[in-house]
This record gives sequence, C-alpha cells and structure tokens, in this order.
Amino acid sequence: MEGPAAPTPSALAALRPLPLDAVRLDPGGLLGGWQERNASATLPHCLDQLTAYGNLANLRRVTGDSDEKFAGMWFADTDVYKTLEATAWEIGRSGGSTEWMADIAALLEKAQDADGYLNSYYQVDHRDEQWSDLGFSHEMYTAGHLIQAAVAAARAAGSPQLVTVARRFADLLVRKFGPDGADVIDGHPEVETALVELYRLTGHEPYLALAQRFLTLRGHGLLGEGRFGPRYWQDHAPLLDTDEATGHAVRQVYLLAGAVDVAVETHSAELLAAVERIWESALAGKTYLTGGMGSRHKDEGFGDNYELPPDRAYAETCAAIGSFQLAWRLLLATGKARYADEMERALYNGIAGSTARDGRSFFYSNPLQLRTGHDGSHEDTPSQRLTWYSCACCPPNLARLMASLQAYAATGFENGLQLHLYAAGTVTAGGFRLGVRTSYPWDERIDITVEEAGKGPFTLALRVPAWCREARLTVNGSLVRAGAQEGYLRITRTWKAGDVVTLVLAMPPRLVTAHPRVDAVRGSAALTRGPVVYCLEHADLAADGSFEDWELDASSPLSVAEHELAPAIRAEFRRRPDTSGPLYQPLADATPGSESVTAPAIPYFLWANRAPGPMRVWIPLT
Amino acid sequence: MEGPAAPTPSALAALRPLPLDAVRLDPGGLLGGWQERNASATLPHCLDQLTAYGNLANLRRVTGDSDEKFAGMWFADTDVYKTLEATAWEIGRSGGSTEWMADIAALLEKAQDADGYLNSYYQVDHRDEQWSDLGFSHEMYTAGHLIQAAVAAARAAGSPQLVTVARRFADLLVRKFGPDGADVIDGHPEVETALVELYRLTGHEPYLALAQRFLTLRGHGLLGEGRFGPRYWQDHAPLLDTDEATGHAVRQVYLLAGAVDVAVETHSAELLAAVERIWESALAGKTYLTGGMGSRHKDEGFGDNYELPPDRAYAETCAAIGSFQLAWRLLLATGKARYADEMERALYNGIAGSTARDGRSFFYSNPLQLRTGHDGSHEDTPSQRLTWYSCACCPPNLARLMASLQAYAATGFENGLQLHLYAAGTVTAGGFRLGVRTSYPWDERIDITVEEAGKGPFTLALRVPAWCREARLTVNGSLVRAGAQEGYLRITRTWKAGDVVTLVLAMPPRLVTAHPRVDAVRGSAALTRGPVVYCLEHADLAADGSFEDWELDASSPLSVAEHELAPAIRAEFRRRPDTSGPLYQPLADATPGSESVTAPAIPYFLWANRAPGPMRVWIPLT
Repeated sequence: MEGPAAPTPSALAALRPLPLDAVRLDPGGLLGGWQERNASATLPHCLDQLTAYGNLANLRRVTGDSDEKFAGMWFADTDVYKTLEATAWEIGRSGGSTEWMADIAALLEKAQDADGYLNSYYQVDHRDEQWSDLGFSHEMYTAGHLIQAAVAAARAAGSPQLVTVARRFADLLVRKFGPDGADVIDGHPEVETALVELYRLTGHEPYLALAQRFLTLRGHGLLGEGRFGPRYWQDHAPLLDTDEATGHAVRQVYLLAGAVDVAVETHSAELLAAVERIWESALAGKTYLTGGMGSRHKDEGFGDNYELPPDRAYAETCAAIGSFQLAWRLLLATGKARYADEMERALYNGIAGSTARDGRSFFYSNPLQLRTGHDGSHEDTPSQRLTWYSCACCPPNLARLMASLQAYAATGFENGLQLHLYAAGTVTAGGFRLGVRTSYPWDERIDITVEEAGKGPFTLALRVPAWCREARLTVNGSLVRAGAQEGYLRITRTWKAGDVVTLVLAMPPRLVTAHPRVDAVRGSAALTRGPVVYCLEHADLAADGSFEDWELDASSPLSVAEHELAPAIRAEFRRRPDTSGPLYQPLADATPGSESVTAPAIPYFLWANRAPGPMRVWIPLT
Repeated sequence: MEGPAAPTPSALAALRPLPLDAVRLDPGGLLGGWQERNASATLPHCLDQLTAYGNLANLRRVTGDSDEKFAGMWFADTDVYKTLEATAWEIGRSGGSTEWMADIAALLEKAQDADGYLNSYYQVDHRDEQWSDLGFSHEMYTAGHLIQAAVAAARAAGSPQLVTVARRFADLLVRKFGPDGADVIDGHPEVETALVELYRLTGHEPYLALAQRFLTLRGHGLLGEGRFGPRYWQDHAPLLDTDEATGHAVRQVYLLAGAVDVAVETHSAELLAAVERIWESALAGKTYLTGGMGSRHKDEGFGDNYELPPDRAYAETCAAIGSFQLAWRLLLATGKARYADEMERALYNGIAGSTARDGRSFFYSNPLQLRTGHDGSHEDTPSQRLTWYSCACCPPNLARLMASLQAYAATGFENGLQLHLYAAGTVTAGGFRLGVRTSYPWDERIDITVEEAGKGPFTLALRVPAWCREARLTVNGSLVRAGAQEGYLRITRTWKAGDVVTLVLAMPPRLVTAHPRVDAVRGSAALTRGPVVYCLEHADLAADGSFEDWELDASSPLSVAEHELAPAIRAEFRRRPDTSGPLYQPLADATPGSESVTAPAIPYFLWANRAPGPMRVWIPLT
C-alpha cells in the first residue's frame, strides 16, 4: 500500500517512502490529533459543502440528473477530486466505508464523454470552448486532480473504477497532446505530477512521456501574455534555464513537484538540479517565516526577492501544501535534511494555521499580521477563517494532505530508517516496530522504544532540525557521542526489543530576525520555539488593549508559560506612550518612550480561534 | 472665464477661485514648463492614442461609420472625454484650434441616442445590458466625464455644442434616476461633481438635486457585495456616518470631491464636516509621503490604517489627481492652508512623478521602491513608464489637470489675494498685476513684484507650507515681522507699482520619518527638501552598483548638490559588507557592519527617466 509520491524501483532516490500503513500516529499527539480532526470534522465538512455549493450537482447536470445552473468556479470539479483523494487516503489510514467513493466514481463514469473527456463546466454550457483557453481553463489541472484521486483510490482504498475513468482521460490527453498531438501546456501545472503518479501505478510509459513533454514545452511562451505576463505561469523560460521562483506561487510549486517526479523517473540529474536551484531561490528570498509563499494578492504571486510583507502576505494555503509536497519529493530524491526542515516549518506554521481548531473553517491566505481596524473585506484576508470559499481549493487540499500525513513522517533504506517528523505513534518497517512517545513540538524530548527488533545491524537516523543548536542522544540512558551529519544523527547497532533511544532537541524560546533586505520587517524580530512560530494576539489583552505600540527589548528574558491554547512564550514589551503624532515628521522630532508590559505570545497556527482581532508575528524591537 | 470647480456666488466659500486667465505661469518655471510640455507632447500624444487604441472608432461604430470591433475597456469613452476636457482648458490657456473639439462634439451629437443616452460600449453590442450593472458598468461615471468636458468647453473654449450633448444625457439621468426615478447609484463616483459643475454652468437645479440624491442614496448597500464588498465602492455607510477613507482610492476621493461640491452649494456644514473628517483620516494613516493614496493592488484600495508598503504602493496617478482636486475644493470651502499643503505635496511628488520628462509615457501606479531584480511583469508596477495602458484613465487625467494647473495657484477675496502654489508667472486680479519670479521648489526665494497696483488697501496672503520651519518676508527690502497665521503670511497695505515682496522659505535637506505604526518603513527615513521627496536611483551608481545594502547615518550632514536632472541631496551612506546570510536567523547571530559611500538622491518625481532599474525613497537608518 503506497502513499502519495511513490517512485518506481528504478527511479533516482536517496530515500524510499515506507508503505502507507508503516506509520501510525497517536490521536493524542499533535499530528495524530490533526489526522483525527481531519477524519471526524474536515472531511465530512468537505462532503457537505460539495453538495451545498453545487459541485456534485454540476456533475449530475452532465448526466442529465440535475436541472440546476452550473455553480462555482469553472474548475469546481477539482474540489470533488481532492475530496475523493482525501477520502481514499483516509480509508487507507483508518478503514471505513467506500460507499461515497463508489457513488462518485459511478457518477464520473456516467458523466465521462466517450472519448474520455470529463469536465462538468465544459461538457454542458461550454462545449465549443473545450481546450480553447488552456491558460486559464484549468482543464488539464482538473484532469490532474482526477488522476491523483484515482491513484490514491487504487493505492489506499482498493477502488479500480476511478482508475478506469482517470486512464480514459489520461489516454485522451496522450492522443491529443502527446508526441503526435498539439504542442500545448496547461496554464496551471498539476497534470505533470499526476501523470507520473499514474505511470507509477500503471507502468504505462506514455503517461510519463507526456508529463516530460509538458515540462519540455513549458517556458517557450506557448501560453502567451495572459493577464499577468508569462512569468505568472512559469512560461517565460524553460526550467533548465531558470534560477528563480516566479509568478503564481501554487503553479510554481506544483510545476516543480511534477518536475522532480519526471526527473527521478527519467534519471535527469540536470532537471533535478534545476528544481533544487529554483527552490533554493524561493527559500533564500521569497518564503515567509511560516513557510508560506506568495507575497502578492493581485496575481497570487511570489513577487520580488525580499518582498515579504507580513500584513499582505498572500501565503495561500495551497502554496504551503504544494511546497510541503515538493519538499517531500526533493527529500526522497536527495536525502537532504534541508527539505525535511522545510516540510516541518510549513507543516507547523503555514499549513497548520489555515485550519481552525474545530476543523471546519479555513484560511485561504495566511497573513502574519492583522492590524487593529483591519479592513478584511470579503474573502481577501478575512480576520477569521471562513467555512468555505468561492474558490474552495484549499479546504479539500488540506483534507488530502492530513489524511496521508503519516506517510511523510519516516522513510526507509536498506537496513535503516529515517525519522523526519517527530510525533507520538508507531513505525513498523524492516522487521522493526518502534514506539515513539513525545509531546513534540511542545516538549524537546522524544523517546523511541524498540518494541520489535529485526535481525542484524540496523541504522536509525534521526533528523536534527536546523533550528536546533543542541541535540542530545541517549540509548538506554547512555549518552551517545554522535554529531549530526548532514542533519541526521545516525545510530547503527543490533537492536533488541526494549531498547530506548531518547533524543532531546533543545528548544529555548528564541528571537529570530530577517535578512536586512526584507524591508517589511526591518527593526523587528519574531518569537519562535523549536519549529513553531509565535505571535501576539489581541485575545490575550485586556478588552481595551492593543499591541500596536509595543516594542520588544531584545535583551529581556523569554520564558515558556502555560496558556489555554498551547505552551506560550512569555515576554516583556515596552509600550510607546504617545502615538498621536503625525503620519510623517522630521526625524529630529520623533520622541521614543516606553512603559513595561508583559504578555504571552501564542503559536501562530492557533491564532484566530478566539474572537476576531489583531495579530502580529513580527514585533518591533526597542 | 471660469476654471475647474467654480462655486456659485451663493455657495459656502472661504476663498474664491480667480478667473481661468488670471494666472499665467512662465514656461521657464517648473509648473509652467509642465504646462508647456503637456500642450506640446502629452495632449497630442493622447489624441494619437485615442485613434491608435480605437476609442474614436468605438464612437464611430455607433454612428455606423466604423466596422471595427469595440476596443479597450467598456468605459473607453472616458479617455475621449478627458482628452476633450484637457483640450478645452488648453484652448483657454493658450488659444489654438477648436477644430478637433468641434469634430468630436459633432460625432458625439450624432452618436447620442434620441433620449440622450451615449456610451459606445452599450449602444452597439450590449444594448440589452444598459443600466443593468451599475456597480461596474461605469455608465454614470462615463456620463460624468462627458459633462466635465462640456463644462470645460463652455467655460474655456466657447463651445456650446458639447453642453447640448451633455445636458441631454444629464436630463436623461434626472428623468431615470431623479426623485421620480429608480433609487440607484453608480459604482464609480464622478457624476456627482460633474452634475454640480453643470448646475453651476447652467443654473438648472435638478442637476444639483440629482447629485445630492446620489450622495444620500450612497451608503445603504444599493450596490450589493460586488467582488470586494461594499466598502470598495463606499456603499457600506452614509458619508455622514463615516469617519474613515476606505476602498478603491479613486472612487473615494472622487466621491468626496462631489460631496464638497454638493455641500457648498446646498450649504450643508454637516456634509462638509464629514468630508473633512474622512479626508483627515486618509491623511493621518493612509497617505504616502508622496501624497499618493491606495496601498493595495488587488482592489486599488486604501487598505488598513498605517498599511503603506513603499514597494507595493498602488498610489494610482488618478488617485493623486483626485486628491489634488478634492484638496482644492476643501481649500475653497474652508480656506485652510492644510489643503493647499496637500495639493503641493501631491503635485510635486505623486502627480509629477507619473509623467516622463518627455511627456509621452506615464506611470499608472507610483511605487516608492523598486528592488533589484524587480518583477514588474506586465502593467503591474512596470519599472519604466508606459506610453499607454489597457485602462488608460491616467494619461488624459494628467492632461486635463496640467492644462488647467494655473487655476489652482491663487485665489481671491474682497481686496485680497492668496498665493498657494509658488511658480514663476503673473497674477492679475482686483486691479493688480503681480509678477512672480522664483526657481521654487529648487530655490527657497520667491520675489513678487507689483507691476500694476489697484486702489486702496489690499491684502496679499502668502502660504507658508507646514514643512517650512523658518519663513522670512521682506517688502522692498525691509523685514516684515509678520508671523504666519493659520498657514499664511498676510500683508495689508496700499501698494504701488514697483513694490517688491520677497518671501524666503528655508528648505534645508531633511530626514523625515514615519509614524511608528507604519511597519513597512520602520527604522528608515526619507530625504526631503521643501515640498519635494527625494529617492536613490540606480542610475547614479557605478554600473555594477546597488544600494540594496545601504544604510543612512541620521547624524551625517546632508547637502544640496548639482545633478543632471535637478538639484540633488548629497548624503553619506554605510554599506553592509556581507549580505550572504540566510533569510531568517537567530537575532543573536545577526552581524552589522559598514563601509562608507557617498551618493546623490534625486527628486522622486524624476526617477525612471534614465535606464530602468531600482529606486527607493525610504532608506534604512544605521
């Protein structure tokens, strides 16, 4: 039973994913808890919304079973497909009924055209427009999500029917746009990674070849100028000639994920290097502290290097998810801990923050600051999570990630195992069963008990995150003097049941600063602890309070404190007493001043779970 | 011969505009030079573009004289109307041919429907959709610009034909949407101020009543949610209940301009106070140092208080123009120097910067920073001015302002005269002719010679801008010990020809800082001199240079220096030597450092006249 992104045995790979059921996360831990919430709240919520918002009726219009008008975005089918994918992973994780999946698969089969075409927007009202506006039609993007749902269903839920539908569509794509077809690409990448996954599932090489063909065709201006110029959809230059992440952030990370998949399956070290280079550029100058990506609302785009406004961070939930999925692929391909670090950062901040504690409302964009009097009109940076969006790409995307989250925690190799994400649970691989006990990321200690031991020497590799300055490892209570190599502490030995490995990753509260070119947060610092970014939130102030005029003294002590939501960081701030001054004044006239105030900062990902109101990650320094 | 915004004799007014021909600006001065450039370059350029971009053909489709497809935005007629208005003011200023105006007036007369309707988008392809989408159709906005062109033609160019066309349309509006008609408003304000101006021209009260009615209807949600919520088009609350500038910046300032016009003509002190209050809110928290307004690209909107990113400043040219026109109306209504200060700030920075030195290319948005490697894809913050835009509202808006600029320099009252904008030229009023000699804003000295003197005591009021800390006034060489009262130095005496008044407004280079809540420019300062904001521009560096890593020592001396473009400010900066660090790091690891470098800052409004490249107004402080 394979999980998301399952390279073939011959693929370039430094690490191999474990089977989908190799890791089980305890529901009492943070990550396992998220999976439970996803199953009990988010996924049912998504199913309800597909009915309430007409996505399913859209498909029933095609089969003549609905008289409703087409509802929602022209790519509304993708919400169905991502929910299908999430359902499949959830069945793989926890069992449960396949009834809904089967119903939808039957509906899709009935709705599909004889030639394999399937798209409820273009099959009823807009037949004449099929394939006519590939820049924005999202037709192949939609096909891609259908394919990914089918792959998940086949891998995790034993449903072959969806694969039949998906293959019919994929075969149509091969006929129309393969080597004998038109030279076109889709404005929104996604079908590339889907086609490689379908190739991995079926062994049918034309799918891989088509994905490769789309990558080769991209970057030559086939999509034209569009509304935002060719950089928007990464069609300004071939990936191999590119060294900068540009344009629409989700498109960019989805494209790179597909490129890694093609690179490892076609053994293209050059393409893999290009992806690493472009990705590195995003991390070096275009990524929020939360792992979020996308600095501009207008085109949902990356923007310039060092253009990282916290208030107008777009940081779309889907970009963080895509970034996580890309990092996972790069981790498998290269084995570099750097990519697991990025997965962790995105997961605990940019991704986790998008879902409410009850699992039923979501952020689409994930700003790092909301001001007092925030004008969060409409869906553009609301001050609270919304239960759904007119473009509802994010909620079901969260659902499919969370339903398969355990697949990303560990990898295997011959006689060894890497732990990348620390969470309470069980890992079963290579004849070993490991029990992991930890309250990470709230606690720095991770206890790993060998519950069953395989034979012979076996290497356990434990990731030491880059944020950690002091990692301490003991085996059965004895300190192991192993320095982390390339981000992992490795212990090779012959294990026996009952052995206990304890890793302590020191996580003092810490002030983090940004590169001096990041103008938007100059003179400010952020509070972090371990992988978690913290923020100030209005709800921790007295009713008439505000932290608009607070400053942080970098030398004042930080401490961990209890809080209703999660362990908080307690810090001392200084308040500017007089803020009645003009908007601009001669520098010489500016008068600083301060009075002391103490307050907790909470994990960023838990903000906006109380009353709506201001929040900020970056705090001005005195 | 009246100019733009001519209150009736019975209107509330602290100051009265002078006749359009009372002020003549010397072409050798900065403002007069802009007027000459406008006449010789910008206006002919606009005329050419109206043909090249199909705006005139659009109107000829209506009369059956063109087979072309409709071209451009659905409100493309407004480009014609604003160019007409500019042409009318220019004829009033410098004479010249009325032939083009007459041709277009004849075309409009022929194109107009029998009932008065005129809109080339809705008269051919979209007849069924007339008045059906007032939130975005811009039909009344378009009517408003037609009316303003007609008013200008009547006042400045003696053309009654346009007035006939405009009145027919205005009469249609009165019939359809007056007290007996539908309760509707237009999503884009503009018709309000136009209707009041038409009332002023014709004395026909239903025009004033309709403008008042539109203001009263606004703020009750008639326009619905739209794409951005009701705050976008200021329909969330009545003006009288509002105390904050919100939403689309151009709509907001145009609405407020119309509200002042209605307030002064209907003697509504309450409405005037509401406008002043809302306007004050914009100046207190939502205005760029350049006088630009609009912090968000997505909805071209104001954004939150203190949300003023220099790099993503939208600061649309039309918002600065609208802001200038609004400030003028408030100045006339209240006599407060504050409003003339705002006119000056917008004029020398936000407005002036939008036009290239050759008068033939323009910025639409006016950022205060472009980074190295700026992703100015498409029309969204290009790194150079463009010759035209798909939405070309700004260039002809500049043309109509510049063609009438002299009208804003001075005002009159019984036995007195105020000078608000200082520029070389001549002012003739109340039996007086004053010759003004100055190189302002490059030089702090303004010499005013009484060339002809009227009879009896006469008061000359000279504005002392708020940025000026030391104003020195002499009459015929003798120091006058008059303190500025409410922003004006007033001298009352019986004048004789040959009297010379000299005003010296000390304008040392100065560092300006922003309110500490303006997160985006924290720890930075801007260089200013007099009313002019300065910036660093790449073209003043060696070929491989960059100021991305420069910091300014607030204590280092600033000096005025010669420069190819205009007097520059010379300052010493410190360069951070090592900028290879990570995007985020523990605060404790950050290492400052510096080496010294000296460079000139140029007036912001002259940037982007050399090669494309980086620019910044706000400079980090050491």
